[in-house]
Amino acid sequence: MFRVPAEPSGPLSDAWRHCVGTGRIELALRRDHQDSLKLLQREIGFRYIRGHGLLSDGMGVYRPYEWQGTRRVRHSFTYVDQVVDAYLELGIRPFLELGFMPAELASGEQTVFWWHGNVTPPRDIGEWADLVRATLTHLIDRYGLDEVRTWPVEVWNEPNLPDFWQGADEKAYHRLYEVTAGVVKEVDASLQVGGPAISPGADAWLDRFAEFAEQRDVPVDFVSKHAYTSGPAQHVPFGVHQTLEPAQHLLDQFATPRERLKGTRLAELPVHITEFNSSYRPDNPVHDTAFHAAYLAPVLARGGDHVDSFSYWTFSDMFEEAGPPTALFHGGFGLLTHRQVKKPTYHLYAFMARMGPDLLTRGADHLVTRHPDGRVTVLAWAPVDASGQTPGPSRHRLRLSVPVRGAQEAFARRSVVDEEHGNARIAWQRMGSPRSPGPHQVDVLHEAAEPGRQHLRLPVEDDRAVLDLTLARHEITLVEVTPVVEEAPEWWDERRLLGTGPR
Amino acid sequence: MFRVPAEPSGPLSDAWRHCVGTGRIELALRRDHQDSLKLLQREIGFRYIRGHGLLSDGMGVYRPYEWQGTRRVRHSFTYVDQVVDAYLELGIRPFLELGFMPAELASGEQTVFWWHGNVTPPRDIGEWADLVRATLTHLIDRYGLDEVRTWPVEVWNEPNLPDFWQGADEKAYHRLYEVTAGVVKEVDASLQVGGPAISPGADAWLDRFAEFAEQRDVPVDFVSKHAYTSGPAQHVPFGVHQTLEPAQHLLDQFATPRERLKGTRLAELPVHITEFNSSYRPDNPVHDTAFHAAYLAPVLARGGDHVDSFSYWTFSDMFEEAGPPTALFHGGFGLLTHRQVKKPTYHLYAFMARMGPDLLTRGADHLVTRHPDGRVTVLAWAPVDASGQTPGPSRHRLRLSVPVRGAQEAFARRSVVDEEHGNARIAWQRMGSPRSPGPHQVDVLHEAAEPGRQHLRLPVEDDRAVLDLTLARHEITLVEVTPVVEEAPEWWDERRLLGTGPR
Amino acid sequence: MFRVPAEPSGPLSDAWRHCVGTGRIELALRRDHQDSLKLLQREIGFRYIRGHGLLSDGMGVYRPYEWQGTRRVRHSFTYVDQVVDAYLELGIRPFLELGFMPAELASGEQTVFWWHGNVTPPRDIGEWADLVRATLTHLIDRYGLDEVRTWPVEVWNEPNLPDFWQGADEKAYHRLYEVTAGVVKEVDASLQVGGPAISPGADAWLDRFAEFAEQRDVPVDFVSKHAYTSGPAQHVPFGVHQTLEPAQHLLDQFATPRERLKGTRLAELPVHITEFNSSYRPDNPVHDTAFHAAYLAPVLARGGDHVDSFSYWTFSDMFEEAGPPTALFHGGFGLLTHRQVKKPTYHLYAFMARMGPDLLTRGADHLVTRHPDGRVTVLAWAPVDASGQTPGPSRHRLRLSVPVRGAQEAFARRSVVDEEHGNARIAWQRMGSPRSPGPHQVDVLHEAAEPGRQHLRLPVEDDRAVLDLTLARHEITLVEVTPVVEEAPEWWDERRLLGTGPR
Amino acid sequence: MFRVPAEPSGPLSDAWRHCVGTGRIELALRRDHQDSLKLLQREIGFRYIRGHGLLSDGMGVYRPYEWQGTRRVRHSFTYVDQVVDAYLELGIRPFLELGFMPAELASGEQTVFWWHGNVTPPRDIGEWADLVRATLTHLIDRYGLDEVRTWPVEVWNEPNLPDFWQGADEKAYHRLYEVTAGVVKEVDASLQVGGPAISPGADAWLDRFAEFAEQRDVPVDFVSKHAYTSGPAQHVPFGVHQTLEPAQHLLDQFATPRERLKGTRLAELPVHITEFNSSYRPDNPVHDTAFHAAYLAPVLARGGDHVDSFSYWTFSDMFEEAGPPTALFHGGFGLLTHRQVKKPTYHLYAFMARMGPDLLTRGADHLVTRHPDGRVTVLAWAPVDASGQTPGPSRHRLRLSVPVRGAQEAFARRSVVDEEHGNARIAWQRMGSPRSPGPHQVDVLHEAAEPGRQHLRLPVEDDRAVLDLTLARHEITLVEVTPVVEEAPEWWDERRLLGTGPR
Repeated sequence: MFRVPAEPSGPLSDAWRHCVGTGRIELALRRDHQDSLKLLQREIGFRYIRGHGLLSDGMGVYRPYEWQGTRRVRHSFTYVDQVVDAYLELGIRPFLELGFMPAELASGEQTVFWWHGNVTPPRDIGEWADLVRATLTHLIDRYGLDEVRTWPVEVWNEPNLPDFWQGADEKAYHRLYEVTAGVVKEVDASLQVGGPAISPGADAWLDRFAEFAEQRDVPVDFVSKHAYTSGPAQHVPFGVHQTLEPAQHLLDQFATPRERLKGTRLAELPVHITEFNSSYRPDNPVHDTAFHAAYLAPVLARGGDHVDSFSYWTFSDMFEEAGPPTALFHGGFGLLTHRQVKKPTYHLYAFMARMGPDLLTRGADHLVTRHPDGRVTVLAWAPVDASGQTPGPSRHRLRLSVPVRGAQEAFARRSVVDEEHGNARIAWQRMGSPRSPGPHQVDVLHEAAEPGRQHLRLPVEDDRAVLDLTLARHEITLVEVTPVVEEAPEWWDERRLLGTGPR
Repeated sequence: MFRVPAEPSGPLSDAWRHCVGTGRIELALRRDHQDSLKLLQREIGFRYIRGHGLLSDGMGVYRPYEWQGTRRVRHSFTYVDQVVDAYLELGIRPFLELGFMPAELASGEQTVFWWHGNVTPPRDIGEWADLVRATLTHLIDRYGLDEVRTWPVEVWNEPNLPDFWQGADEKAYHRLYEVTAGVVKEVDASLQVGGPAISPGADAWLDRFAEFAEQRDVPVDFVSKHAYTSGPAQHVPFGVHQTLEPAQHLLDQFATPRERLKGTRLAELPVHITEFNSSYRPDNPVHDTAFHAAYLAPVLARGGDHVDSFSYWTFSDMFEEAGPPTALFHGGFGLLTHRQVKKPTYHLYAFMARMGPDLLTRGADHLVTRHPDGRVTVLAWAPVDASGQTPGPSRHRLRLSVPVRGAQEAFARRSVVDEEHGNARIAWQRMGSPRSPGPHQVDVLHEAAEPGRQHLRLPVEDDRAVLDLTLARHEITLVEVTPVVEEAPEWWDERRLLGTGPR
Repeated sequence: MFRVPAEPSGPLSDAWRHCVGTGRIELALRRDHQDSLKLLQREIGFRYIRGHGLLSDGMGVYRPYEWQGTRRVRHSFTYVDQVVDAYLELGIRPFLELGFMPAELASGEQTVFWWHGNVTPPRDIGEWADLVRATLTHLIDRYGLDEVRTWPVEVWNEPNLPDFWQGADEKAYHRLYEVTAGVVKEVDASLQVGGPAISPGADAWLDRFAEFAEQRDVPVDFVSKHAYTSGPAQHVPFGVHQTLEPAQHLLDQFATPRERLKGTRLAELPVHITEFNSSYRPDNPVHDTAFHAAYLAPVLARGGDHVDSFSYWTFSDMFEEAGPPTALFHGGFGLLTHRQVKKPTYHLYAFMARMGPDLLTRGADHLVTRHPDGRVTVLAWAPVDASGQTPGPSRHRLRLSVPVRGAQEAFARRSVVDEEHGNARIAWQRMGSPRSPGPHQVDVLHEAAEPGRQHLRLPVEDDRAVLDLTLARHEITLVEVTPVVEEAPEWWDERRLLGTGPR
Repeated sequence: MFRVPAEPSGPLSDAWRHCVGTGRIELALRRDHQDSLKLLQREIGFRYIRGHGLLSDGMGVYRPYEWQGTRRVRHSFTYVDQVVDAYLELGIRPFLELGFMPAELASGEQTVFWWHGNVTPPRDIGEWADLVRATLTHLIDRYGLDEVRTWPVEVWNEPNLPDFWQGADEKAYHRLYEVTAGVVKEVDASLQVGGPAISPGADAWLDRFAEFAEQRDVPVDFVSKHAYTSGPAQHVPFGVHQTLEPAQHLLDQFATPRERLKGTRLAELPVHITEFNSSYRPDNPVHDTAFHAAYLAPVLARGGDHVDSFSYWTFSDMFEEAGPPTALFHGGFGLLTHRQVKKPTYHLYAFMARMGPDLLTRGADHLVTRHPDGRVTVLAWAPVDASGQTPGPSRHRLRLSVPVRGAQEAFARRSVVDEEHGNARIAWQRMGSPRSPGPHQVDVLHEAAEPGRQHLRLPVEDDRAVLDLTLARHEITLVEVTPVVEEAPEWWDERRLLGTGPR
């Protein structure tokens, strides 16, 4: 039995909730997206949101025209403003990613995704600079400098991959970065700019980014990269299978920027993992499983040791990189499906959001915190077999002695997500995997997505209660332990109540 | 194993949802009351609502004044209109009960309840007639005759009890009834008027009411009485204990009006049980239990055999006959506590509301219906020991073969309410019985009030699936069985998904 | 003075509210669109909504894939269902328009609009038939046959224009129509199918459509065409100017189908004007003006004489045929701008929605109706000069004697929209024409968009009140006249109130 | 013409919005009350709310019972918590007034108001102390000490009037105060306690309260009194007429505590006018008029010069001291009627809420402020004749030169409340003074209650614009002046738009 310390070792990092990913920005105009974000913010509460395509054609920002024989450009923020207004109304701020290229400003025709994001350098770097300048100036005019200076500005996305940046041309990226960062600082020196937003396995780009920044004296306010653990995609129609590395590999990937940048000018900067997940595919059903929540639990518990933020990619299945989804559960990145059905990994985040600010202890299968009101909160998770060789252990036992001050008994509220609880995809399969469920089916799925619940009275001895937890396969469990203040009157005898009599 | 017929024997009566009781009408001005009613109407959907005190002082209807030396009366409907507007907005209609007496129109000072409803005859029967006339005329002006003629008008409440009608003076009641019914018909002959709204154990009043109506040729459009099964109150502070008769006694009480009135002029009239419950006390915790839901289940299943409606007294704990409640769970009549925590009996009603319109079969422990879309719905309940001698059986088994057409498998959704599920009072006790729970505690109670859920795939053979149900102590359970249309694609192999591998 | 008859000549046609247009269907996923539609339905209440692109790529319906070496097609209704669910939730039904062509089913690459709707015939007519069949079958499965058979199915849009149908190939359209209509009736014979959805000035297509339908015995349940009155576009950046024909030309265009189809098999069919407006351009500021409301008023008053419906194109400026709007007021078709600012023409529709069901009289500048409760409603409008030669008369006087039964005085509520009232574009210009107004500015615009209001007491003589109305330039005005029931008490002397004293 | 200074002379005091009055606390349970408060907080935003009856029987706090032969008291906060939860949810805090006496704790039977508030001293001062202690302790347990220490605690109401405190017994009040204040400080020394909450015309009580506090060393954290300007009531049924003193008398009354308490121990304490209005009667229609708004405008503009707060008595007509209102407009104190119809004085407060934080200038008929964004806001009001001898001037002219920086033109938004605008009572009278208006009538009243609006473009010269304002009788007007940033494109020629052509 593990004895949880009665006093905190420090604050619980909230790098896990600093930022979350979204499909292309334009989707934020949609009601389903906003409904999901509203739920997310009420129950979890992220601080920033990041997605692609702020400057892509769908947002209608870059608008060339002719007047009196001359070509000009109108910068238009009709949709940008609707998106940002919606974000702020929902209590979340944009983590700006500048990209992709407006078709009419692009130097080439290469695009990425079903929605055709253009990934070529600007045809005219001056017009790109104008576009960035106009965008930031407009945002400051509308939202105020105090607000906008809290919004990080990241230059492009995964330029190290030829799919995302023509030819993965590193020099061209550095040039884009330099011009962009220059404009950002010209608009206001207090704005924060960073990059290089690289995909996993390209850490050498960090070294060269640091070198470039130093040599050219280019402003860099934060460093960003991405982290994923999946192997190559084995395709089936509208889906893939992939192997995964153990979850520890995510923490290892988080750790490299600080390690590699030691001694460079970028050494002390904030590090943001601006995307992470297990699989990088929006059609891998692993995202929809209880396995996935248990797999990521230790990452959320420890990620803040290594970085300032790690941003789950993405909060909603309203996502179109591989086209509009053709079934409710389709392996999307989302914490929520369309129509706001919660996945197990949603609950992992919601459980984290119920942890207290003071860290009591962490272990291989648990995280324990305390709230100012004395409530002790335990997040526990079952070990998973990421290799796919076995389904993982069917039972996992965990005993904790937790501190309970000033009471003779404790109240414990346990919330369970596993194969049978808080697991709508399983119910959906039992229903027949309806691709576009009707209203009655959606009601059942919302119900099936709720965690299992137990409410218990525990004895307290020597200011301690014992939690003897048996976790099912792939279970994540949250236990909140509260000292009991007994208000039942002395005269009440429950045994006199009908149905409770002599047994 | 019981073989449920594949074809319906007829429609399921909905006498159970025809009407529901409320605390004094004035409480309908309150937000908590309206929030509860909104929830109730969304999930259950009653047609009518009935409560005391429409004409009592708190509603401010009867307002005498002097002008130029003469006494006059102003009839004022400020609150009546706010209440009725709220009802109609929430999709429920008033079942009007005319009473109690405005203090300034009363002939005496006797009152009932913490809120002092005056129970004496009018000082001036002409002014009473004016009051009734003005009220009905106003309602017709505001809501239209087509609407108001659907609202039954009941004269007074339990005049056979001296607490509710001074001296339980039967002649005086008949006189009040005659004048009132006359005014009602004078306002519009199509309005429906009835009585005598007697308490249990006074059926002889029915005989004399019939005789009186016949002799005096008094209009009667429906007959009403009340039904309760509790014995005398054994008081503790802010609470009581009582014995209960078996639930069958409620059905027996429902049956008497039709039996006794055979051969009289009232024989063919609608019969409304305008109040029923187990205990008639608003401070008996039996109302808050799973026992109570299982106790009443057979009554809801069969009550419609005997009467046109039987109205649960009452939908909300926002009720003040014994004063404002001093603890969240206090044995109130409500299906809902203050702050909308659902009690087990709420779920009994919500389960009934999910039954289909076609009755397939009924038994001692089950009711089976079908929806137009083929869904078969089973309500099952455990037997209870109403004597209090034992807690009742800890397990009850039930096997049903239910018809499932046109599918090889069925999806079953089971919802469970028993001692451990859908039972917020138990969680509340484990919490320490907090009299006025804080927001966090209320959240836990809302969660604890949700039924347990299971979602299963069942095999179908010969167009039948077998439900093998084991019910816990005091369980009521709802099972909805739907034929499965399988949409999972042929290429999908769940075993390749991580975490599901070779076991 | 015109003496309005006291008795109705018949019912007021509601062809004006039968249907309304929307930008491409996909936009219905957006919150701004849904917010606007919600407002529209609350205050106006259309029955059907029609837009382009149901089958275009953005809706993600047609999804070819390969499995085991074979090409197949998955039909996916993720977005279709979200759109239709939203419509039905808002109390409006789809008027289905089948089009445009999925890129992967298209025979060519020609597209229309900023959003690239493919306008070429199907590469494989069998796959098109499959697509139509799958779509209708799915809708019936989800929404029920009783519901879907109320949804008209129109084949394609403006096939007589080469921009909308490759080469404006009439034979190819007839072939598409024949195959499509055949599939529709094969799915269910009670579904309603129609066409040819032609643009103005192509009525000869109607003759040939009738001939074709007769010769080939092709099902046609309704006939559709469009009507606009604008001349050629004179472009400026992000805008156009155009001349307009007098509004009567719209009524003339409405009238032609019944005239031309006399004697054909299509003679008795419903005629739907599935699009109409003044200008066919989404960037002509005339749509935003009070002039426009006054111009269309007689069309709404009389359109129902000629057709079963005439559908305003479109209800919202959330519309992208010429790209995302670059300024709040930009000449869009919408009754509402982005962010729900009401335009004068919105009020014309809202005024029509407040007219009574009984038509008392119509004139060149007025329409008078009565409600069942006796309220008489007058819509009056100023004459406009559509030629642009003059701004139109600055004053227009109108005197009506309207029937008021059973009262000595009447209450008149007048709502005014003209250059200074209910005219947000004018306020917006005075503000500086902010392209993307901030929250404070949007508040001002919502306020400026409200009509002017007057509330008057009128004398009644011989059951008549006189309305002496002076209309300002481009005014539309609604007057509701209600008999007064005086409830002020006899003892009240207003002159004793401070501030009202001896004058 | 008055030249408004370009730079502020200091901050605008917000003593006017510090607190607002409500009918007895129990009414806060009602939906109409909460709907009104929600609107109020959205558009005005008060900080505190104060009303009578926190401890009166309707709140159900003091609950004696017997157990095992002994009398005990249960303190119950079921309703207190519902009320305070609602307040905090709506962003307003309680200004606690301790009173009146629970009937079972009272020493006598004297009551005040239709709702029978007991105004006699406690039968047992120890039980009173227990009641106060239990209440404050409970509030701290539930809401936290940091929160509750911001809630002032006022002891009783108007003890100088025999109607409110038996015999107006000053010694008895001092004794009550001393015990109560002692308990408050015993619960927590940081809680703020004060009194004596006297009615107008009793300032000598202040002197003796100071003396008593000094002599007995009793804690006093703030001083409170009330202010009204009406003369004796001349009754008609359900209404009164009264004379009024000029509004300056209110300011004079505000000023006395600081003057009289100079040199005493209470000299530096905050002064709260915990009730003020013109008439102290809840049935004087002057409260419903435009006259009333213009009368109070200078008081809101200057009241903060004299006191820390002055609390309008009351925000809503949901008020029952003289019984439930018998007509929608009945002369209630409310800024809002039942059903949220805004009165002119509501707009006075809403206009104040739109003033900027920086005070530019004040005059006899105007108040001018500036917002951080440069917007200049002018509140102007017409002079009124409080004597009732004349209706007051029919026109009042006012010319101001206001600073506008950095623009060549300004945008002015004017909001007007006078006899014809923003004046629902006038429309209601024209309608026939319907006592309980139907839904259609309520819609008209909501519309009639909206201020008149104008939106203008003004020239700017030398960084100044001229406002030439003509005010109608009893007008209050708000003008917001914003510099114009012109975004209309150079190519746009409004004269080419149809309907604007050559004039």
